[in-house]
Amino acid sequence: MTSTQNFIVTLSCADRPGIVHAVSGALLQAGCNITESQQFESPESGAFFMRVAVSTPEGEDALNAALAPVSREFRMNLGVYAEDRPLRTLIMCSKEGHALNALLFQQRTGTLPIEVPVIVSNHLDLKPMADFYGVPFVHIPVTPATKADAEARLLELVAAHDIELVVLARYMQILSDDLCRSLQGRAINIHHSFLPSFKGARPYHQAYARGVKLIGATAHYVTADLDEGPIIEQEVIRVNHARTAEQFVAMGRDVEARTLAHAVQWHAQRRVLLDGHRTVVFN
Amino acid sequence: MTSTQNFIVTLSCADRPGIVHAVSGALLQAGCNITESQQFESPESGAFFMRVAVSTPEGEDALNAALAPVSREFRMNLGVYAEDRPLRTLIMCSKEGHALNALLFQQRTGTLPIEVPVIVSNHLDLKPMADFYGVPFVHIPVTPATKADAEARLLELVAAHDIELVVLARYMQILSDDLCRSLQGRAINIHHSFLPSFKGARPYHQAYARGVKLIGATAHYVTADLDEGPIIEQEVIRVNHARTAEQFVAMGRDVEARTLAHAVQWHAQRRVLLDGHRTVVFN
Amino acid sequence: MTSTQNFIVTLSCADRPGIVHAVSGALLQAGCNITESQQFESPESGAFFMRVAVSTPEGEDALNAALAPVSREFRMNLGVYAEDRPLRTLIMCSKEGHALNALLFQQRTGTLPIEVPVIVSNHLDLKPMADFYGVPFVHIPVTPATKADAEARLLELVAAHDIELVVLARYMQILSDDLCRSLQGRAINIHHSFLPSFKGARPYHQAYARGVKLIGATAHYVTADLDEGPIIEQEVIRVNHARTAEQFVAMGRDVEARTLAHAVQWHAQRRVLLDGHRTVVFN
Amino acid sequence: MTSTQNFIVTLSCADRPGIVHAVSGALLQAGCNITESQQFESPESGAFFMRVAVSTPEGEDALNAALAPVSREFRMNLGVYAEDRPLRTLIMCSKEGHALNALLFQQRTGTLPIEVPVIVSNHLDLKPMADFYGVPFVHIPVTPATKADAEARLLELVAAHDIELVVLARYMQILSDDLCRSLQGRAINIHHSFLPSFKGARPYHQAYARGVKLIGATAHYVTADLDEGPIIEQEVIRVNHARTAEQFVAMGRDVEARTLAHAVQWHAQRRVLLDGHRTVVFN
Repeated sequence: MTSTQNFIVTLSCADRPGIVHAVSGALLQAGCNITESQQFESPESGAFFMRVAVSTPEGEDALNAALAPVSREFRMNLGVYAEDRPLRTLIMCSKEGHALNALLFQQRTGTLPIEVPVIVSNHLDLKPMADFYGVPFVHIPVTPATKADAEARLLELVAAHDIELVVLARYMQILSDDLCRSLQGRAINIHHSFLPSFKGARPYHQAYARGVKLIGATAHYVTADLDEGPIIEQEVIRVNHARTAEQFVAMGRDVEARTLAHAVQWHAQRRVLLDGHRTVVFN
Repeated sequence: MTSTQNFIVTLSCADRPGIVHAVSGALLQAGCNITESQQFESPESGAFFMRVAVSTPEGEDALNAALAPVSREFRMNLGVYAEDRPLRTLIMCSKEGHALNALLFQQRTGTLPIEVPVIVSNHLDLKPMADFYGVPFVHIPVTPATKADAEARLLELVAAHDIELVVLARYMQILSDDLCRSLQGRAINIHHSFLPSFKGARPYHQAYARGVKLIGATAHYVTADLDEGPIIEQEVIRVNHARTAEQFVAMGRDVEARTLAHAVQWHAQRRVLLDGHRTVVFN
Repeated sequence: MTSTQNFIVTLSCADRPGIVHAVSGALLQAGCNITESQQFESPESGAFFMRVAVSTPEGEDALNAALAPVSREFRMNLGVYAEDRPLRTLIMCSKEGHALNALLFQQRTGTLPIEVPVIVSNHLDLKPMADFYGVPFVHIPVTPATKADAEARLLELVAAHDIELVVLARYMQILSDDLCRSLQGRAINIHHSFLPSFKGARPYHQAYARGVKLIGATAHYVTADLDEGPIIEQEVIRVNHARTAEQFVAMGRDVEARTLAHAVQWHAQRRVLLDGHRTVVFN
Repeated sequence: MTSTQNFIVTLSCADRPGIVHAVSGALLQAGCNITESQQFESPESGAFFMRVAVSTPEGEDALNAALAPVSREFRMNLGVYAEDRPLRTLIMCSKEGHALNALLFQQRTGTLPIEVPVIVSNHLDLKPMADFYGVPFVHIPVTPATKADAEARLLELVAAHDIELVVLARYMQILSDDLCRSLQGRAINIHHSFLPSFKGARPYHQAYARGVKLIGATAHYVTADLDEGPIIEQEVIRVNHARTAEQFVAMGRDVEARTLAHAVQWHAQRRVLLDGHRTVVFN
């Protein structure tokens, strides 16, 4: 007796005729019914991107076997993921809890297809929230002297818990270049401005000083080049002259949490692919 | 010496395995390079929808020949369109010119892939604007006594000019059921409310009386059931207690024009397919 | 030694010349420095509305004494509130926690100037969340047979805790007409649609069936006329054909929580005044 | 027999107690009925800003006479304007007509309370549009050699036509520092990005390269410091990976035209006051 299972297939390769035909042929061979499919041909890079959601009674091995020759022929960057397996996610935070709260609440209600084996923070303030959601909380204080050790300990936790994604949920420490490189493509940060406006520290105060009429937040992949990583999502809200910089901070919490949650959701659903320094988001 | 030509292929049929493989095979056979592709499997209706943009050196006949057996096999509703052929569009208007102005300006700048052989109005107010854009303007006054004749004359113009789309750009007459039926799927109206709120007359005044905080516009296909046609696009703008109903009207002009122009653009680009009473918009 | 104290003054009355002069004179007499001021003359009702934030070293009695003759002269509906006194708020909920979570989190971070002495629910699901935030949780199950008793008990809690505002944070019971009347002007509900579209039950499923392109939420004062109370705030988010009704529900949680939190914030800051069936929102 | 006339009064001065009382007293003395009033106390600069719309049977002289002593006492920057007198506006453009089209159309429908005695352009492309709207069109070509003469001729036109506002409606020449200074506070530009992101040339191509998910436009006062003038209004629209830089340009036209038209409307309605490098917008 077989039961049907759902998978997400993502792939990218150099564009040339025949890719869709070859992929759809392999999926047909593996007994797949396609339930969602998106593709994109990048005019800039000449790369082809595809995400397909399928259901099949034949299982992961059959699917991989059918796709393997196609992947070889087109030199694909191929991923096959069971849809019901949540992404193993480590969340880092500091003192402010709005982003953490949104992620944990949405994880619990099923909106975010992630599981969170561990939360890491350089402060103790958010331990009660982690406790409420039943997530182990590891306190790793960071000083200039201990920074290297702290990052080593983080990488140990990433390895020990088979972490696939690290989310910086208003974690207020700058990661070292080495750490950024080792987490490349699997770490998402929320910056509290509409990048590339107002990089660096105190972006809401910069925004206030410039007199902008919209403020925003940017979720992006972490790179060694600070605030320059590939952008996944951006959202803005309206402000006016009567709002102070402190009110910008308070109003911004909601848009930060929302923007980060969307980015994590799409990443966890395998909807985000990298096209050089830009993202393809199949949402 | 051959030159490459661009086509849009749209199709819908009952969903079953193998559609994408068959279509992509036919496109490959016709020498097509896929430049854009979107598909959707409707969980409600069980129908499959697809829109593919391709370029090929082999021409329209080869493309049709390759797709014909696939279309038969899957009992498809199939359309093949040369991308550079603008949609023949008749615009109807009355006294207010904001929607007409947006359509004609965007047609001229190339944003809207339409050509406008004729404008029809029950008033003369907008004739100068039609003249400025060099579009023939036909004045068809409508009274209860002449309504049937007026509609007959409109249908003659639709036939004489090979019209593929009729756009009601704030045309302030209700079409008869018969006319609605004969234009089914090829007439787009802009309603000046966020449907299904505030159907019928004077929607901004209804909105003011109800004290809503957002007002909007809805572009939809015309059906005999007034203000109930399939929705193509909706947009809203924020209002507050200090705005009067008359200011709603003035503020609404911009959102009406924008919403209608988007709907016409997507229809003309063959991005809108009908899934029963709902629209699939591949944008 | 005196210290400065902040107050909010709200007033409404029939419009006639001299109100602002009289009010500003009284405030000057009470040693007030105006830090924020807004006013509105309703062209519909002929009523005048004003909200002034002031700081003064002279205290609440002096302020009331200075305003009393003005209030009498213009037959004002006058309110004077210490700005640092949070609004005593009772939250009602059922099984879904997104709205409750937003309110409690924002209360804790100081965004919402409320205190919550008690949470009431007809289910036990959200007791752990109430516990986490340290708020007493009263379980009042409701059946057709016990509804009258349940509402009586609620009114006892309102009286016992000096409740100034009742928030229905996705409380899934319809209040009786009598209860609506006794809470008139001090109960806020969140409806999960862009009212007046999709009143009644399962609004997201109604929205899906109608094929709308935006879904939304409406925070409004509770009245005996269901889903017809004065609207405080509305927000929308974009959806498309590929989203199911269930996804509308999930996507809607965020906009519901945000819309309700905004309405509660503005009400608690005394920014919302009633102009017949419409609201004046000084934000 | 007297008839009532409407005026806008704007003022700014150093904040201290008694301003509102003094102003409202003067307005009362001049027989004014206040129909709209807004004020703001800037916590940054310590300045007080006020805009009042009034109707009075007593005329402009009486109003000025009543306000004069108050203005002297508080050392106000005071403006008194007849509401029905449109702002004399010179529009500059180059080849692209979307911003000009929006301004002229909205002027004609009465949304923009401006009159346009003359349009200046360094190209002839938009002369037909000026002709259609019946506005004199002056062609002033600009080369490096003739730039100084061209700017001198512009200033002559500004003087000859009693121009109060110069609008750069996608005018593609950089103004000299001297010209910027002589138009300070009375020239509005539209920049085709969400400033301060993407200053300088080809902002949509910069935005594409950075992979942003929202693009926008900024209307600001012209200053000698390019793209750094006080911001009046900003708006954004959503883009995604599938849009090219050329499509950004096309999509951006609508948001540019809208943003500029809003800024011009608010400036013409005397709703925009300068608070150092930031704007107070009473809208």
